Amino acid sequence: MFEAKFEDGVLFKKIVEAIKELVKNVNLEANGTGISLQAMDTSHVALVALQLNEKGFKKYRCEKSLTMGLSIENLQKILKCSGNDDQITLRTQEEEPTTLSFTFESKNRISEFQLNLMSLDQEQLGVPDTDYSSVIKMPSNEFTKICRELGNINEAIGIETSKDGIKFYVKGDIGEGQVSVKSNDGEKKEERVECDVDEPVNLSFAVRYFNLFNKAAALSPQVILSMSQDQPLVIEYQIEQMGSLKLYLAPKINDDEQQ
Amino acid sequence: MFEAKFEDGVLFKKIVEAIKELVKNVNLEANGTGISLQAMDTSHVALVALQLNEKGFKKYRCEKSLTMGLSIENLQKILKCSGNDDQITLRTQEEEPTTLSFTFESKNRISEFQLNLMSLDQEQLGVPDTDYSSVIKMPSNEFTKICRELGNINEAIGIETSKDGIKFYVKGDIGEGQVSVKSNDGEKKEERVECDVDEPVNLSFAVRYFNLFNKAAALSPQVILSMSQDQPLVIEYQIEQMGSLKLYLAPKINDDEQQ
Amino acid sequence: MFEAKFEDGVLFKKIVEAIKELVKNVNLEANGTGISLQAMDTSHVALVALQLNEKGFKKYRCEKSLTMGLSIENLQKILKCSGNDDQITLRTQEEEPTTLSFTFESKNRISEFQLNLMSLDQEQLGVPDTDYSSVIKMPSNEFTKICRELGNINEAIGIETSKDGIKFYVKGDIGEGQVSVKSNDGEKKEERVECDVDEPVNLSFAVRYFNLFNKAAALSPQVILSMSQDQPLVIEYQIEQMGSLKLYLAPKINDDEQQ
Repeated sequence: MFEAKFEDGVLFKKIVEAIKELVKNVNLEANGTGISLQAMDTSHVALVALQLNEKGFKKYRCEKSLTMGLSIENLQKILKCSGNDDQITLRTQEEEPTTLSFTFESKNRISEFQLNLMSLDQEQLGVPDTDYSSVIKMPSNEFTKICRELGNINEAIGIETSKDGIKFYVKGDIGEGQVSVKSNDGEKKEERVECDVDEPVNLSFAVRYFNLFNKAAALSPQVILSMSQDQPLVIEYQIEQMGSLKLYLAPKINDDEQQ
Repeated sequence: MFEAKFEDGVLFKKIVEAIKELVKNVNLEANGTGISLQAMDTSHVALVALQLNEKGFKKYRCEKSLTMGLSIENLQKILKCSGNDDQITLRTQEEEPTTLSFTFESKNRISEFQLNLMSLDQEQLGVPDTDYSSVIKMPSNEFTKICRELGNINEAIGIETSKDGIKFYVKGDIGEGQVSVKSNDGEKKEERVECDVDEPVNLSFAVRYFNLFNKAAALSPQVILSMSQDQPLVIEYQIEQMGSLKLYLAPKINDDEQQ
Repeated sequence: MFEAKFEDGVLFKKIVEAIKELVKNVNLEANGTGISLQAMDTSHVALVALQLNEKGFKKYRCEKSLTMGLSIENLQKILKCSGNDDQITLRTQEEEPTTLSFTFESKNRISEFQLNLMSLDQEQLGVPDTDYSSVIKMPSNEFTKICRELGNINEAIGIETSKDGIKFYVKGDIGEGQVSVKSNDGEKKEERVECDVDEPVNLSFAVRYFNLFNKAAALSPQVILSMSQDQPLVIEYQIEQMGSLKLYLAPKINDDEQQ
């Protein structure tokens, strides 16, 4: 028997909202330690990884490891039937479940839904837990804004780190530009910019993946960018008391591509 | 001479907004007791009926019964020229009018419009004033929300009543679900759920008609659903001190259709 | 060397927003007295004219007259990268510049952009500084609203002035209408309607140009309409302490066209 209850159901809705532009069908894995999900985006360039620890749930029980194949689009249709103040419970009785049950609870209303599951042929990728030479923490809405804006000028965005800050730059047919965000230890965590830079990096990425992932900013006021030269970057949103949602994206190799 | 003045002109705008997805051309009938309108939807499945009593108008005068054939689309174009705080007066001098005059009045601005009328061949249907075995009063925004949400899962929605509440259910390719709304006598009328059930019903409807009609929720915080087994349901929004707007819709006969 | 700094950068964004539906490519002229721009709309019917005086800038310096050919669409892409609270500086070092630099400054963020310029073959039209027989000042949002609303009924809008007010009228297939705005000396400037009418006019215009220009209402709470019979009208928005943005539009000659 598997049961997982989100006290704050809107959190689960935000997670699904954050990944829905990137992944189509996905295996949700549940075991004694919590729920996880890992999936390549539909063009097989970016990797989305979600980890939710059992401690963060209001109720959590999973007697045997389970794999549940979901269509994100259908999952969204079900989740749209919940209110933003609802508690959401996922549940299944079967060992090899063909449906996943959802209970949405608010003061006056209880809703029950069954979502049909499917069998997906997906292998779990091992993501090495490496050290990164530049780790930048910055306000998530500012990161989102910069990516969206620079994406209007060209589809390749450059990122350069230093101890003092992070620079985003772009060069396109209509002109070029750069946005510099300086380190600052503001009072509020969500305004702070922290640059932990052992070695600076200078990397170029396809900005469209950043933009497809930008609804994840609803999960946390802070985004963490972890980079090493010529290695995939990690965009991480921590989910309070529960875990994190990460996007891994390889840099563009050939700098000429951005011109 | 016919003259009818809405103190609160936005009310008339809301009524037209509520029916505009369902009906195209319509006869507005005026006589000494007030204004009424009755029309089948464009696919001839649902019936819309409006009744506005003369007492609810700021000024009302109708010396002789009148039939005014209107295009709802054109009426909307005219009404868009009024502000939400305007008083709206409908007026015609002719016995067989070819135009209907509109006056929109606000503090600094007076607008006058003439809408061309047309001759429509529509017969008035007699709607029998029957008793219903289940009458449910519930918050209109909640009803709207449930219909819109479940409509994402399948186009047929089931309604089951009991003394304790009302259950909406749906079954589609992606899964199935149900939303239960319990009776409650909340302090505020607009939060109350009242179930007057002599005999429970279990009916299935094409949810798209509910959704086409859902702007009517702007007319009243409460919706009244009146049902008898295998009879058309009535969705009623009462318009304070003026009358009501109703939608009649026959149930789907074959339960298999909803799968 | 040319440098012009807007203390309130959002003002420049509003100006570009206001003209972007009307003009495509445009020469920005800078000299010792300020910045100006003049361009026919893409269908060569209306003329847009902007004047910004050097006194209105936080910093202004222009050693030699400059002509900078801009794509409005590309300019917008660059300006989208600025925040609404940013200060915006335009700058170029060259005598015959091929790029224009933009600096966007806010508390934590400095952005630098270069926009590629182009060479445009545009002649400056001399606009005679005539007297107008009817000059109407009215709230800009009300003017915008009337034009948008009446534009739903027909594409030609009539304007008739008198000492007491201004009347907008329209006649179309679905009916006809008129909106009368009376003179009033309200307390707040932005609510006042002032009619300085030496000789009344009665003119007809293609309302679509008014509507293409209506974002200019964001520049000023008041619009000034200057008209003489059978002469182009001027729609003017004054930009506080800086200058003005004007649209010149010839009236429709043949009254029959509006039916």
